[in-house]
Amino acid sequence: MQAKTPGESRTTMTDLVLPSETNPLNNLFGGELLARMDRAASIAARRHSRRIVVTASVNHVAFNRAVPLGSVVTVEAAVSRAFKSSMEVFIDVWIEDRESGSRTKANEAIYTFVAVDETGRPIAVPPVKPETDLEKSRFAAALRRKQLSLVLAGKMKPNEATELKALFE
Amino acid sequence: MQAKTPGESRTTMTDLVLPSETNPLNNLFGGELLARMDRAASIAARRHSRRIVVTASVNHVAFNRAVPLGSVVTVEAAVSRAFKSSMEVFIDVWIEDRESGSRTKANEAIYTFVAVDETGRPIAVPPVKPETDLEKSRFAAALRRKQLSLVLAGKMKPNEATELKALFE
Amino acid sequence: MQAKTPGESRTTMTDLVLPSETNPLNNLFGGELLARMDRAASIAARRHSRRIVVTASVNHVAFNRAVPLGSVVTVEAAVSRAFKSSMEVFIDVWIEDRESGSRTKANEAIYTFVAVDETGRPIAVPPVKPETDLEKSRFAAALRRKQLSLVLAGKMKPNEATELKALFE
Amino acid sequence: MQAKTPGESRTTMTDLVLPSETNPLNNLFGGELLARMDRAASIAARRHSRRIVVTASVNHVAFNRAVPLGSVVTVEAAVSRAFKSSMEVFIDVWIEDRESGSRTKANEAIYTFVAVDETGRPIAVPPVKPETDLEKSRFAAALRRKQLSLVLAGKMKPNEATELKALFE
Amino acid sequence: MQAKTPGESRTTMTDLVLPSETNPLNNLFGGELLARMDRAASIAARRHSRRIVVTASVNHVAFNRAVPLGSVVTVEAAVSRAFKSSMEVFIDVWIEDRESGSRTKANEAIYTFVAVDETGRPIAVPPVKPETDLEKSRFAAALRRKQLSLVLAGKMKPNEATELKALFE
Amino acid sequence: MQAKTPGESRTTMTDLVLPSETNPLNNLFGGELLARMDRAASIAARRHSRRIVVTASVNHVAFNRAVPLGSVVTVEAAVSRAFKSSMEVFIDVWIEDRESGSRTKANEAIYTFVAVDETGRPIAVPPVKPETDLEKSRFAAALRRKQLSLVLAGKMKPNEATELKALFE
Repeated sequence: MQAKTPGESRTTMTDLVLPSETNPLNNLFGGELLARMDRAASIAARRHSRRIVVTASVNHVAFNRAVPLGSVVTVEAAVSRAFKSSMEVFIDVWIEDRESGSRTKANEAIYTFVAVDETGRPIAVPPVKPETDLEKSRFAAALRRKQLSLVLAGKMKPNEATELKALFE
Repeated sequence: MQAKTPGESRTTMTDLVLPSETNPLNNLFGGELLARMDRAASIAARRHSRRIVVTASVNHVAFNRAVPLGSVVTVEAAVSRAFKSSMEVFIDVWIEDRESGSRTKANEAIYTFVAVDETGRPIAVPPVKPETDLEKSRFAAALRRKQLSLVLAGKMKPNEATELKALFE
Repeated sequence: MQAKTPGESRTTMTDLVLPSETNPLNNLFGGELLARMDRAASIAARRHSRRIVVTASVNHVAFNRAVPLGSVVTVEAAVSRAFKSSMEVFIDVWIEDRESGSRTKANEAIYTFVAVDETGRPIAVPPVKPETDLEKSRFAAALRRKQLSLVLAGKMKPNEATELKALFE
Repeated sequence: MQAKTPGESRTTMTDLVLPSETNPLNNLFGGELLARMDRAASIAARRHSRRIVVTASVNHVAFNRAVPLGSVVTVEAAVSRAFKSSMEVFIDVWIEDRESGSRTKANEAIYTFVAVDETGRPIAVPPVKPETDLEKSRFAAALRRKQLSLVLAGKMKPNEATELKALFE
Repeated sequence: MQAKTPGESRTTMTDLVLPSETNPLNNLFGGELLARMDRAASIAARRHSRRIVVTASVNHVAFNRAVPLGSVVTVEAAVSRAFKSSMEVFIDVWIEDRESGSRTKANEAIYTFVAVDETGRPIAVPPVKPETDLEKSRFAAALRRKQLSLVLAGKMKPNEATELKALFE
Repeated sequence: MQAKTPGESRTTMTDLVLPSETNPLNNLFGGELLARMDRAASIAARRHSRRIVVTASVNHVAFNRAVPLGSVVTVEAAVSRAFKSSMEVFIDVWIEDRESGSRTKANEAIYTFVAVDETGRPIAVPPVKPETDLEKSRFAAALRRKQLSLVLAGKMKPNEATELKALFE
């Protein structure tokens, strides 16, 4: 299969924070943001693979900034690297100030999706060909994250995780 | 106030058609699409004006193509022309075929928003400076649509609607 | 097929404005009202035709009055005229003051629906027989609106739209 | 306060059964119907009292007929009797067959509401003046139901419930 | 079929009161609580019967305490008695004070469910074997409630309702 | 502050998978499950701290099993360890087979919450005192996870993460 760039799967979901999605401090519930990111990331994975895709895992997500009621939130997702039938999707979340119009980064997250056929069985996906510097750096780091994920799941021995081990030396 | 281009207010909202939004034929309810377009258009109007905005009217909207459950729908909205405190927002709706990846136009709509202050009173907005041919043609047509809207509301006499009258001669 | 009166398709949908449907000014979102009107109008079209119906178009809708959180909103829809397989539905929206009990008109809208069979193909519907003066005036105006809609869609030449052209003379 | 008729508070809420409201047999969830009836009945209570109203109790509700996905459901609510600050609201639920257009009774329910001021304290409401035979019979039975409710809540001794006791003699 | 204890069907549903579920006094809508109780009770009935279950009726429900926005609400449901294919489910509702952590009883309700096969026909369920004193007292009272329900529905003559009649003597 | 056991914050949220929460394969959307887990975990953190709590981060979450439409899903959350103002919450997700009644583990996840005062500033929380073997093992591992999280965020040097480093030796 022919490689695709992250730009080909990039998905932009801009929407408001509605009253039904806020917590007692009038900020977007963490859980609602997780659900929006899942929808945007699944569309990116689908654009890359042109298959049905299902969420396989969510990497560490930090909620650094509260997102107040009425904010305009932009979720941008793109496939950063593919492994056989799985795809790592990198997600950036921005909020906009209404008066100045300036965008600030609110969150970053990484989800993994698997492409499946109509019966739910995994099926191969095209490789990713990164173009920009940021895309290349995310592509490289994806292998380390995959090893970490396998180690944490007990499916790889820590000392076989060569990419990861290097971090601690 | 300094003019802004439609590109500065352009808003992209890509999302899935969820099961709770479909009619008995398993297609997106017309009403749900109207609500999504309203949210995207209100963000574009807010980006143009940096104000609170409220929906003032919806122009003729034709539903040419059914949008099936599970589709990826992209709603793109941009301010096409501004009049004192009101903004005409042009909205294009696209659906994507999962297998071929091709996008087809599903709908077009025009909403009008008014910028207001915290007490709900209208407030002036910047003019629009169209750049592309499509933006220029939509900018020109906006005046005709405004006259039509005034005529239909009984606020302008048909024979004063010079732009519109020309159509029928 | 035997003609039906607008009274036979009249549909009344009275409901509250809930917190999840309001904008930053605590008024009903324009998009939510468009969705409610679509549901009420589709029931009226279904009562007239006894068929599956799909939204074909929305005419110009003006949002003249804000509808505050907690309001009681009544949406009344009735088929105003039928053309082969399409039906024009006229919608009136009222809000009630809790203390005085008085009703005020908040909006008016016109949607068009098409009756379809189980495979989605258009199918003929009964004609409309207006009874009251208001029904007769809406019935007459429906032809003008249909011509306007065809002209705007480029499917009729302006100078063939005899009903419409008369307006500008 | 001047008495009002049930007709003055009568509230009609016609709406579709949407996919998000159905159980595994594709019928409307009992809980969703209970919520719709609560909204319609609260509007009737509010029309009668012109006050903020809160649900005080729900009488026995029997679900005699399943309500399938896509049905048109009409909930009709009217205040049947008032006691100081509380109002009994009688609710009738109808479903319509799309092809024949015939309406069949799907449910009946009785809710009780209390009118309160802005601080949540009970406040007096007008009496009810029934007009039709059905309204008169519901008005009379309301006293029996109130006694039953007090007996079940342990707030009235069974042998003081004269209206109710008569039933068993 | 082997009897089951209420403990085997006990279902705990703890959740927040979200902004989209509140009335103008910022308390949980009665209708929303009725819907939550229906979902919890249907799971209890399903755990008891291991069948598809549908709501048959709701007994008298009193709303004694308002449940404010942001509260933690616990709905506990367990089958209290079974009759052929129907199950009475007793539901207790608790709210928690965030600061003291103390739980207070907010509501009690009784719903009846019927177990059905894939075609919707009633099917037999196991009997209930109460264990605690509270379970035994609810088991005993269930027969009285069933008679009351039959009398109110006109399906049993009051003087045949021996359990119930005893109350008034 | 006095230590609390995980049992004191344990929160059980049992609910159905509704049609509006499913993907094209008729399984629960990953994003919906993330949102449910967030609500359950936030209640556990609130029970432990008796404060307003906000989601700070989500650790690696693996979606091992699809959760089909109509399933009964139980989300169990308990605070596993506390650090000054933050709490690690361990979440177990179970699904039940309707016919056999057997429960199978569907997911495991770890969320971190921060307790804040009314102005949103972090505030100290009680320590955790684990009791069972599982609680003790989760308590011990929480420190390793905290170091990993700091390393990944660039806030701790890998060679200072003594607990974590030991894994790779």
